[in-house]
Amino acid sequence: MRKPIPVDEAIERVMKWCQEGEKEYVSLEQCDGRILAEHIDATMPIPWFDRSPYDGYALSAEATAEASSDHPVLLEVVATVGAGTVWDGSLMPKQAVKIMTGAAIPDGANAVIMVELTKEIEKDGTRFVEIKRKVHEGENISRIGEDMKQGDVVVEKGTMIHPGIVAVLATFGYDRVPVMKKPKVAIISTGSELLHVYEPLEKGKIRNSNAYMLQAQIRRAGGEPILFGKVADTFEHTLYVVQKALREADVVITTGGVSVGDFDYMPRVYEHLGAQLLFNKVAMRPGSVTSAAIFEKKMLFGLSGNPSACYVGFELFARPFIKAMLGQSKRYLKRAQAVLQKDFLKPNPFTRFVRANVSYDDGMLHVEPVGKDKSNIVSSLVQANALLVLPGGTRGFQAGDRVDVLLFEDEGDDIWR
Amino acid sequence: MRKPIPVDEAIERVMKWCQEGEKEYVSLEQCDGRILAEHIDATMPIPWFDRSPYDGYALSAEATAEASSDHPVLLEVVATVGAGTVWDGSLMPKQAVKIMTGAAIPDGANAVIMVELTKEIEKDGTRFVEIKRKVHEGENISRIGEDMKQGDVVVEKGTMIHPGIVAVLATFGYDRVPVMKKPKVAIISTGSELLHVYEPLEKGKIRNSNAYMLQAQIRRAGGEPILFGKVADTFEHTLYVVQKALREADVVITTGGVSVGDFDYMPRVYEHLGAQLLFNKVAMRPGSVTSAAIFEKKMLFGLSGNPSACYVGFELFARPFIKAMLGQSKRYLKRAQAVLQKDFLKPNPFTRFVRANVSYDDGMLHVEPVGKDKSNIVSSLVQANALLVLPGGTRGFQAGDRVDVLLFEDEGDDIWR
Repeated sequence: MRKPIPVDEAIERVMKWCQEGEKEYVSLEQCDGRILAEHIDATMPIPWFDRSPYDGYALSAEATAEASSDHPVLLEVVATVGAGTVWDGSLMPKQAVKIMTGAAIPDGANAVIMVELTKEIEKDGTRFVEIKRKVHEGENISRIGEDMKQGDVVVEKGTMIHPGIVAVLATFGYDRVPVMKKPKVAIISTGSELLHVYEPLEKGKIRNSNAYMLQAQIRRAGGEPILFGKVADTFEHTLYVVQKALREADVVITTGGVSVGDFDYMPRVYEHLGAQLLFNKVAMRPGSVTSAAIFEKKMLFGLSGNPSACYVGFELFARPFIKAMLGQSKRYLKRAQAVLQKDFLKPNPFTRFVRANVSYDDGMLHVEPVGKDKSNIVSSLVQANALLVLPGGTRGFQAGDRVDVLLFEDEGDDIWR
Repeated sequence: MRKPIPVDEAIERVMKWCQEGEKEYVSLEQCDGRILAEHIDATMPIPWFDRSPYDGYALSAEATAEASSDHPVLLEVVATVGAGTVWDGSLMPKQAVKIMTGAAIPDGANAVIMVELTKEIEKDGTRFVEIKRKVHEGENISRIGEDMKQGDVVVEKGTMIHPGIVAVLATFGYDRVPVMKKPKVAIISTGSELLHVYEPLEKGKIRNSNAYMLQAQIRRAGGEPILFGKVADTFEHTLYVVQKALREADVVITTGGVSVGDFDYMPRVYEHLGAQLLFNKVAMRPGSVTSAAIFEKKMLFGLSGNPSACYVGFELFARPFIKAMLGQSKRYLKRAQAVLQKDFLKPNPFTRFVRANVSYDDGMLHVEPVGKDKSNIVSSLVQANALLVLPGGTRGFQAGDRVDVLLFEDEGDDIWR
């Protein structure tokens, strides 16, 4: 008789064993979506020289002190500097330099007036700019270090690289980027009922969908899936393939074979390996027969063969483990609160994770279960973007109740609750 | 003098030109994250045979009509069927078949009792199962078509393939999956101030960060980025590279060169090509100098060279255009409402898109601006997961106000507002 343990404890037992993986370098062009393996410090201040944020005229503010519409001031335009070029001279009080967005402020200038507020005129072959208002010292100058100071930690290790972070890496000259190696995650499907996807149907058999679903879930979690195919329902073959997978991967996920049926060999496989069983039953629906075991620091997840139970088991237990190997602090599914849109009046002794759709409406989160919620049901996985969490106990839940939801596509959270 | 047009109108002018792209086939193993190019119909009912959702005994419910703890009923166990195997016989009323999860219900059985509720005994070499409660007809049988009916549209064309959809595709035998070809999007960086990422710094110059940032944004939108490098600030070189990009890509994005500076050649490039200008100024901050033009059905986006303006211009205009080419109905950034956490008292004539972080708290969405919000500022892009929308006009905004936010990482929305 197996003793179910609470979900929180099952997660804790798994996470106790997580170890951070290794680092590798990829090109800047290939780094998006990967996890940073080092803190990124500002290698220089940003901007690293005083620059103009607009097209305009760099000048000495003092020269405009008396300027007005009635009494415009004329400054001699002694040069034009485009972004990327530098004017070597030094500005005299009655002079200005025409300056483009992003160009360095010339010596002697302490303000910029936007080109739209000026008029350029020529007198006797000399260029002048006409200015009709007072310009304040420092106006329209992006100062050294205004955006970032040299030495600031700009992005922390363990962060997923998104487009904004790519921009920061490029700015600081990271042509090659230190990222975490993707943990290798083996997928083994057990069950004589499974057909290859390309095979014709046979009575009593179904196509192997879990392996490909897990492949996509593993990629979403940041891991590198390795398909080990399906094994027949024999102890010897199951053991052989699990041993092979343990040699080649960091984490081994099996589907099926964890229940109490006559052909459920995973418990015997764990025993024969000498793996330390962490749990073999969890107080949750679906996925109560989820198992986990540790063997030579490699984690074995024994997920249910039912698609929805398999899906939930992966997201609750394998996802945070993979993300912890990647050094991510945000390893758990993001938990938020939402308003339940439907009654769940029947109490359940086990915590239920109902596939659901979370939407926003006028600043509130709403959650609605999708499809039918039996664990063998695939269709509900199409619309679900979250799991609705209904704690086990003596009470049911009513539409309008505030409930917890776990978001699949969010970056995640530092804590489980 | 350029006339700014409202953001809504600019989006409309761009989207009027979008055309759906082509279809290609990829393997089931490589389809996640791609966009479905066809509706996926249920090619068979799911389940496609009556099956047992649990390990247990298949039996005729009538035989248990009188069963109770005091008067257990004994049924002869005539066979054991594992998942994937089929029992060819037909059950007699006083018989049962031991059945594993997922196995086909034998002829003559109309219910299943879970193994945990039974006891198997042997008498005179014959196996019997002891049943202590009445089992109802239909109990614990997953019926043909209970999950999906044959011919149902299960997933719609234009949907992004996530792990749950992969499971559905596998179930229906899609070994090869029809997906939309990724639109090719050229990236051209203009500006003499730009250094390659691997080059040492030079006074007045900065490293090219926009190209790599856009590469990641294009990938996130579902496109295939092609880097065309940086061009010097000359009209001839800019024109040459834009023409080359138009031959090789579906969409051409340039950064920089769209302002009113002396070296801003993009307006002349559009003119020389004979491209139809859609707009060259938008009533928004940052990114007011964003341009768009159409040439031989290919869209040219002229984004600002300022990192934040470039980022915002891409997300508002290029992202929905790329997604429309992919046949996605959810092409626009998801708009939600959130509670503003900070005052923005100064009114602004233009709509502002402030880089911001949206978080959930007790069922509500909260939004907080991140970093400093000048358009040349990169650091704020690290923490931002959304844009806070502050409509232009005569009023400012206070902490506690309900405001619109546009979410970067959400799947998106069918409509712009």
